[in-house]
Amino acid sequence: MWALPPTDTVLQVLSLVALAAQAMSAALAAGRRRMDWVGVCFLGCITALGGGTIRDVLLGHYPLLWVENPFYLALTAGSAFATILIARAVHRLSVAFLVLDAIGLVVFTMAGCDVAWQVNASLPIVIVSGMITGCAGGVLRDILCNDVPLLFRSELYASVSVVTGLFYATAFGLKLTDDVWTVLTFVLGLSFRLLAIRYKWEMPKFVFNEDRK
Amino acid sequence: MWALPPTDTVLQVLSLVALAAQAMSAALAAGRRRMDWVGVCFLGCITALGGGTIRDVLLGHYPLLWVENPFYLALTAGSAFATILIARAVHRLSVAFLVLDAIGLVVFTMAGCDVAWQVNASLPIVIVSGMITGCAGGVLRDILCNDVPLLFRSELYASVSVVTGLFYATAFGLKLTDDVWTVLTFVLGLSFRLLAIRYKWEMPKFVFNEDRK
Amino acid sequence: MWALPPTDTVLQVLSLVALAAQAMSAALAAGRRRMDWVGVCFLGCITALGGGTIRDVLLGHYPLLWVENPFYLALTAGSAFATILIARAVHRLSVAFLVLDAIGLVVFTMAGCDVAWQVNASLPIVIVSGMITGCAGGVLRDILCNDVPLLFRSELYASVSVVTGLFYATAFGLKLTDDVWTVLTFVLGLSFRLLAIRYKWEMPKFVFNEDRK
Repeated sequence: MWALPPTDTVLQVLSLVALAAQAMSAALAAGRRRMDWVGVCFLGCITALGGGTIRDVLLGHYPLLWVENPFYLALTAGSAFATILIARAVHRLSVAFLVLDAIGLVVFTMAGCDVAWQVNASLPIVIVSGMITGCAGGVLRDILCNDVPLLFRSELYASVSVVTGLFYATAFGLKLTDDVWTVLTFVLGLSFRLLAIRYKWEMPKFVFNEDRK
Repeated sequence: MWALPPTDTVLQVLSLVALAAQAMSAALAAGRRRMDWVGVCFLGCITALGGGTIRDVLLGHYPLLWVENPFYLALTAGSAFATILIARAVHRLSVAFLVLDAIGLVVFTMAGCDVAWQVNASLPIVIVSGMITGCAGGVLRDILCNDVPLLFRSELYASVSVVTGLFYATAFGLKLTDDVWTVLTFVLGLSFRLLAIRYKWEMPKFVFNEDRK
Repeated sequence: MWALPPTDTVLQVLSLVALAAQAMSAALAAGRRRMDWVGVCFLGCITALGGGTIRDVLLGHYPLLWVENPFYLALTAGSAFATILIARAVHRLSVAFLVLDAIGLVVFTMAGCDVAWQVNASLPIVIVSGMITGCAGGVLRDILCNDVPLLFRSELYASVSVVTGLFYATAFGLKLTDDVWTVLTFVLGLSFRLLAIRYKWEMPKFVFNEDRK
């Protein structure tokens, strides 16, 4: 998410916008559970920055982004707090937020792959690192809201992250020009996610009902 | 919490007492959920030591206090276990425990600021580090008890920690004599928390009810 | 779990089988909560590998096993996924899985002790490290399934881990031949756990009902 080279200014801007959007969606979830203002800001920060944080802790990749650059804390906490004032508007723009969330999923996945690549992780770990960066924040949000994580129950979310990571990681193997490949991956991942939302594609569920005796 | 210099003997003692008190309060929460003896001891340890542990993992500050000095595990597990025997008494002393918990909040916040300061974190991270140290243990407790974290729902708890940290951190900037400032911060933070309890000050809540369509 | 010396081939094989078995049991739990296929695989990985991961993060022992050797991810995710196809069979073999889980508990505890020993942790931490390795995966599973962790509520599970660790750790002190002691510990730990299951031994519970006023 934060490891993009400075030339990728567009992706940088997109990732900041996506961080803010994820914090704002989390703030709405906090509002549904009647959290107080502090809880809203916390949940915004943890949801938006949690994926990258878990990845860095698992890879032993210190210092964490937001420790080095507290601006990210201010951005996400501020976005969450602003949501309290403009909740109706945020809610009405829910389609826009789905798109922003999808952009975040793809951009964060790519950035997670980059970080793992930099610490010389193997290819499977590069992909897992992308997936953790893209998805784990939402899992933390659901745990803190006392839900079974949505990620585990529905939609092509983690799958989009895996496909994006796979596609992106082949670039490392093929040594293609970064820029072209980055744009291709972004377009592919985003389209996949948006189509999945539009046509309600879902992973098959595993339903097991028999009571243990 | 544990980073206080040896001269601060009073604070050291207070922090040990507060650790024990937090473990004992957590043990009562475990009892309300009918946990077994092992669960009671675990919940006591995790609640009392969890904030400092999360802080150290996020800052990459190893070894963890309780790894280096397992006495802390014995103290908190022992206090939790003792609570099983004297639950009624602990319950009856709930006001005393609220005060001890408030002392812990302030002392742990200051110690968390100290640790971040030692690893040369920036000022916002010093304050966040204090807040994590003071508050995250209770969040872990609530997650393990399968509740929405109390911290996110009510009371001036995290806010007290932030104000304490802000006040304490200005000392680093101003290079005042440590001892005076430490005492001042302690008194301010504790008073703030106790007044918040006494007069039931609360953060405003963010309530958002409209169902997502 | 993964730190066993190459001579312990039998234990190595047992630990792989136990990892797969824990992932498969977790997959059934996922099926009871109607998770999708991705959730099933995640829950399998997190349950089987989570204990060792938490231990390594707390001890600052990098790189994590599954980062270094992604085969473990493939093994546990694959086992969980296979469970979707053969859920009835897995369910019918529940006694076999209880035994495999017990083997895992003992083998992982011993491996956790080994890791802590290698990083020169003190004796109490060696035992705690074994317990975290053996038990924490199940706690993560229960948190993600939105349950109060089973570990905290019943059965001699953590206790078996502690006794196994204590017994195993005395070998470090006594400098006995490793092999003999390893086998002895394995037999003792496994017998203890199986007897506890067979005769429904339980930890006493701490029940505290009085409402806080």
